[in-house]
Amino acid sequence: MRSYTIVGAGAVGLLYGTRLAAAGHPVRWVVRSGAEEIARDGIEVHTGGEVLRVTEPDVRVDPADAPASDVVIIALKTTANDHLDRLVAPAVEAGSTVAVFQNGLGVEQQAWAAVPQAGAVLGALCFVCVHRLGPGRADHLDYGAVTVGELGATQPSTEARDLVADLTAAGVEASSVDDLGRARWEKLVWNVPFNGLSVLLDASTDELLADRTTRVLVGDLMDEVITAARACGHGVERTFRDQMLEVTERMRPYAPSMKLDHDAGRALELDAIYDTPLELARQAAVDMGRTDMLARALHFLDRRRATGDGREASPDRGPASPYTRLS
Amino acid sequence: MRSYTIVGAGAVGLLYGTRLAAAGHPVRWVVRSGAEEIARDGIEVHTGGEVLRVTEPDVRVDPADAPASDVVIIALKTTANDHLDRLVAPAVEAGSTVAVFQNGLGVEQQAWAAVPQAGAVLGALCFVCVHRLGPGRADHLDYGAVTVGELGATQPSTEARDLVADLTAAGVEASSVDDLGRARWEKLVWNVPFNGLSVLLDASTDELLADRTTRVLVGDLMDEVITAARACGHGVERTFRDQMLEVTERMRPYAPSMKLDHDAGRALELDAIYDTPLELARQAAVDMGRTDMLARALHFLDRRRATGDGREASPDRGPASPYTRLS
Repeated sequence: MRSYTIVGAGAVGLLYGTRLAAAGHPVRWVVRSGAEEIARDGIEVHTGGEVLRVTEPDVRVDPADAPASDVVIIALKTTANDHLDRLVAPAVEAGSTVAVFQNGLGVEQQAWAAVPQAGAVLGALCFVCVHRLGPGRADHLDYGAVTVGELGATQPSTEARDLVADLTAAGVEASSVDDLGRARWEKLVWNVPFNGLSVLLDASTDELLADRTTRVLVGDLMDEVITAARACGHGVERTFRDQMLEVTERMRPYAPSMKLDHDAGRALELDAIYDTPLELARQAAVDMGRTDMLARALHFLDRRRATGDGREASPDRGPASPYTRLS
Repeated sequence: MRSYTIVGAGAVGLLYGTRLAAAGHPVRWVVRSGAEEIARDGIEVHTGGEVLRVTEPDVRVDPADAPASDVVIIALKTTANDHLDRLVAPAVEAGSTVAVFQNGLGVEQQAWAAVPQAGAVLGALCFVCVHRLGPGRADHLDYGAVTVGELGATQPSTEARDLVADLTAAGVEASSVDDLGRARWEKLVWNVPFNGLSVLLDASTDELLADRTTRVLVGDLMDEVITAARACGHGVERTFRDQMLEVTERMRPYAPSMKLDHDAGRALELDAIYDTPLELARQAAVDMGRTDMLARALHFLDRRRATGDGREASPDRGPASPYTRLS
């Protein structure tokens, strides 16, 4: 059985780590907060009526302290990615596989820069609705599929196929993709409108689709992302927009991860979800006007939060808190 | 002396009506609320250390009740423009001059449709910072210039020159413009970014310019308005953007009229300031992406206010309340 190190004990790190542990893999977590509680009380993930438990989890605070493992999963927020060399690199042995379970664009490149000793850097897209309840506690509400690809590869590598096989054996709906870049852009088709608008307008997905002006806006933002993806060489279909609108309409009303982050006073994942796509689009001479307006408004709110302006309801609880993601 | 009827006793209607009355013109006000208080207590406008008073103002509630006057000034919010036939038309005699003291595009056309008996419909742009304090009470804080033009004219008509002359004699910095359309678009260069962003981000003009991301956004929104104006045949200069940024930087920190409306739970002037410019730009094949995103977000907030969602702090006090305008 391949061994796993999960960096981050947020909702995503808890859910997939616990699944892998339940399937018999040696799994350890490297966490930035809550290590004592997790070691003492164990891990508990509620999912579909059952409870997955790891009663005596292997939890470390210092990544240099983590024994070598075959696979290192990065399950941190992207807002921590400036510190991957400190938070992740010490846990990565020469030749290890690193899998980036994060949202947005450019995250595999950031990982590569921080862990050049890795044997392979995979990208993993999680289509999941899971909330962290507290240290070592998560509530898995819906979905859960994981799509795995490899940066720069045109077909799944051995490492990608191994990760998909482990996840599948652990009960996760996992699959591999040939074009990781296209998969990342496709995920942004959902994330760009719903993450940002939910924060800016204090609204859930169903409210944004029920209002006739924001419904059009959501579709127009999706169109911008698709146009940018195509200009960047990733063949996202035009019809993907309508697919995403229909999928969202069938979903239960949902507050996207960025909304939960904002409401909890945490930093927003703006670089990976907005700034990098905007920069790539700019290089391809595509003006994502609506996305740009949305991103700049979010940066304003995020900076106000960071500087402690009283208008934000919650204090900054720091970037350590894990988060829920959908799609 | 030409006689005046002012429809609306908001900040703008009080300020300019009182100036005209002080200069000796017969002035009467047609108001939708506060008539009793105004008739009893008179009108009081604080301006530059002095107080302008009209002790026994002529105030009417029913516009059909207003005697004929040479000039009818529309000083209502544009959100009332669907009802100009009821609120204004009865006060307009055949051949009267109608002057529209409102923001945005399309307001003169709306007036023409409602008062076809008018001898001329003028547009008046108020560059003024004035707050309504209560019935018949206003505080004139800064600026005050009025620019007058005539719909469809290529040079100032007799009626426009007469209005400018009356305002000038009353101590108002008034001037006429040949191209009313261009003047209206130029005013939008300021209104489009600052009105909307101040509402969406709960921020004043100086905060929006101090933050580096919103500062760029303000400039980009201004560029969109200038591009649209030029595509629609109005030669607004590209450099007008930097002029507006510099002017705003020299201003004292300011909450635009739309921000005051929003904070007070009043309807937002979205049609005149956003929807009409967007529609004209669309007809000219210009995509105002950032403006469109901003407008749709504001419509969402405005509709939530109108439907009484508890997330809006203030109850809807109805469209009758007057308002402060800048630029």
